[in-house]
Amino acid sequence: MKRIAIGQAGGPTAVINTSLAGFIENLPGNTELYTVENGYEGLAESKIQKADRKRIQKILDAKYDSGACLGSGRYEFTEDKMVQAVKNLKAYGVDSLAFIGGNGTMAALEKMEEIARAEGMDLQVIGIPKTVDNDLGMTDHAPGFASAARHVAYSVRDIGRDLESMRNFEKVRILETMGRNAGWLAAAAGALMEEEKCIICLPEQKISLKSMADEVRERLKSQETLVVVVSEGVEWDGANPISQAIIGGRVVLGGAATYLQETLRAKLGMFVRSENLGISQRALSLSVSETDRQEAYLVGAKAAKLLEENISRKMVCIERESNIRYNVHIGSCDLQKVKDAGERTMPLEFIRDRRKFYEWLKPLI
Amino acid sequence: MKRIAIGQAGGPTAVINTSLAGFIENLPGNTELYTVENGYEGLAESKIQKADRKRIQKILDAKYDSGACLGSGRYEFTEDKMVQAVKNLKAYGVDSLAFIGGNGTMAALEKMEEIARAEGMDLQVIGIPKTVDNDLGMTDHAPGFASAARHVAYSVRDIGRDLESMRNFEKVRILETMGRNAGWLAAAAGALMEEEKCIICLPEQKISLKSMADEVRERLKSQETLVVVVSEGVEWDGANPISQAIIGGRVVLGGAATYLQETLRAKLGMFVRSENLGISQRALSLSVSETDRQEAYLVGAKAAKLLEENISRKMVCIERESNIRYNVHIGSCDLQKVKDAGERTMPLEFIRDRRKFYEWLKPLI
Repeated sequence: MKRIAIGQAGGPTAVINTSLAGFIENLPGNTELYTVENGYEGLAESKIQKADRKRIQKILDAKYDSGACLGSGRYEFTEDKMVQAVKNLKAYGVDSLAFIGGNGTMAALEKMEEIARAEGMDLQVIGIPKTVDNDLGMTDHAPGFASAARHVAYSVRDIGRDLESMRNFEKVRILETMGRNAGWLAAAAGALMEEEKCIICLPEQKISLKSMADEVRERLKSQETLVVVVSEGVEWDGANPISQAIIGGRVVLGGAATYLQETLRAKLGMFVRSENLGISQRALSLSVSETDRQEAYLVGAKAAKLLEENISRKMVCIERESNIRYNVHIGSCDLQKVKDAGERTMPLEFIRDRRKFYEWLKPLI
Repeated sequence: MKRIAIGQAGGPTAVINTSLAGFIENLPGNTELYTVENGYEGLAESKIQKADRKRIQKILDAKYDSGACLGSGRYEFTEDKMVQAVKNLKAYGVDSLAFIGGNGTMAALEKMEEIARAEGMDLQVIGIPKTVDNDLGMTDHAPGFASAARHVAYSVRDIGRDLESMRNFEKVRILETMGRNAGWLAAAAGALMEEEKCIICLPEQKISLKSMADEVRERLKSQETLVVVVSEGVEWDGANPISQAIIGGRVVLGGAATYLQETLRAKLGMFVRSENLGISQRALSLSVSETDRQEAYLVGAKAAKLLEENISRKMVCIERESNIRYNVHIGSCDLQKVKDAGERTMPLEFIRDRRKFYEWLKPLI
């Protein structure tokens, strides 16, 4: 009999509970399931509970709900805390741990396995990928991204159309997206609109406020309205001027668009408004991509299979087999390789040729 | 042969082009159609053009697109400008004018008819209702509101679920909605979530920042997270502290939530973020309510019928015939009565008993 613990970490996505359901519904029969509350915090502070039938039903009922139904959150998961986490898992007799998360989660799983091994404990670990930022390596993309990208693409196109019809009132709208150091989500903004109607600022690019003001001025000579999309991680003139706070060791971004708004108001002397697309990017159930929903379920199910096969130290990954007729294989890769790959930003190929990126993106949204 | 002009005014909705299509597709055969660009501006500055078959097709292709495809916008439509507008319509030989808009549009149509009559011109005018704020009188609700309310209800519920799963990171999220002086949209925020998880601040209520801070502190004693929804028109302690600009005689609101955020940060000493639900409320096509889409089409079609029947000085209105099995009749009412009714805020009955409001709202979203 396996004792398996499952948790969710980091910012939720609109499909993170679908992965959880995929995992639970495909566990082998002879299993005891434990749920971890509030992500790493639950591991370190032993907020672990055996899931009875009623609790499992409640989790499965949340299959299509936004938010992480086990509780996720932010938590500074230091090595000391990981040592404690391994002790806590041992106390519950847990021998297998699956976690749904991003880069931090994959690194933590590997580290915990190492700690456990050093103490003579055999801890099987499997990572289930999740990120709206799409900054996880070793997978074509991660569940959560497609729905967020779909939300961004539709929102920016529709807000652009709204702006166009209000052209006698305002000409420029600045929209801020999520993405931290990776421009995937910001770049998705242009997927459904004409290229000239939208300037996109990626964190992968060096951009100065002056050049941006010049470009806006120039574009408005030949067109009536313009949407400027700014990734939250953009460093104007080499520095991100605004972070809202630092909590649990994590910088809360926000304000890159406001900063550009103030600059354009001052430099162009025109009324410009900015808007943050906000938490809806990762949360709005109305924006969920059907592809994302299906894949989220499948990666959860695959994690259950890997546990059954006694495979460890792997992350489930999505391998794109064909783009012409979109088709994926759900595979797995070493956690070590995910760590080595590091934070995955937009490849130069996609930055240089936006159309290539949109070809890649279209089946997802 | 009738010469009919049609225009769109004010902030667009996600279904304003559906009303336009409903109007055009139901015009009598023997009609010449003229389109007015950028709302009142087009009337005053004679941006009026005869719509040929190709142009009509282009408009119909935009039937489900966000934004106002004729161009809408803001414009200070003074009496002098209206006199000019009537002259311009006369110059094109236009004898019938239909406009899709809100309270301002209905008043302007009536006034233009009066001006025309004083000059011996017989100008037939019909108003097609449209507003996301739902502040138009003499109609059960106006097209555009239902989709915006649906967007707000789902967004707030989903952001609330996201917040709940991030409870070890932040406890309170403040969300700002549209609505100006009417609380309909803000109130819609609670339609899909448990009452205790959400405080809603309506412009119809007197609210002090201190009492709000106290209530948030009190609620957090018995629950982990809390969403506070603030209508953009809320007057903290009797004054709306922030307006972004005044353009075309219209105050651009925005900042009521930021103001509360700063207050809560100072008074409760906790990390609180606010977010404006933004233009997506009126624009996001993914959020469109099917009921709204159908009704938007029908009010447009009804306007065409009224023109055919030589009826004038009326606004199309939606009369709810049954709430048990939702059913509406598309009727009409005097423009004069719409004007007399004034800006329609939330009735006391709905403010006092939120459940009654949600019963009324449910079939719309």
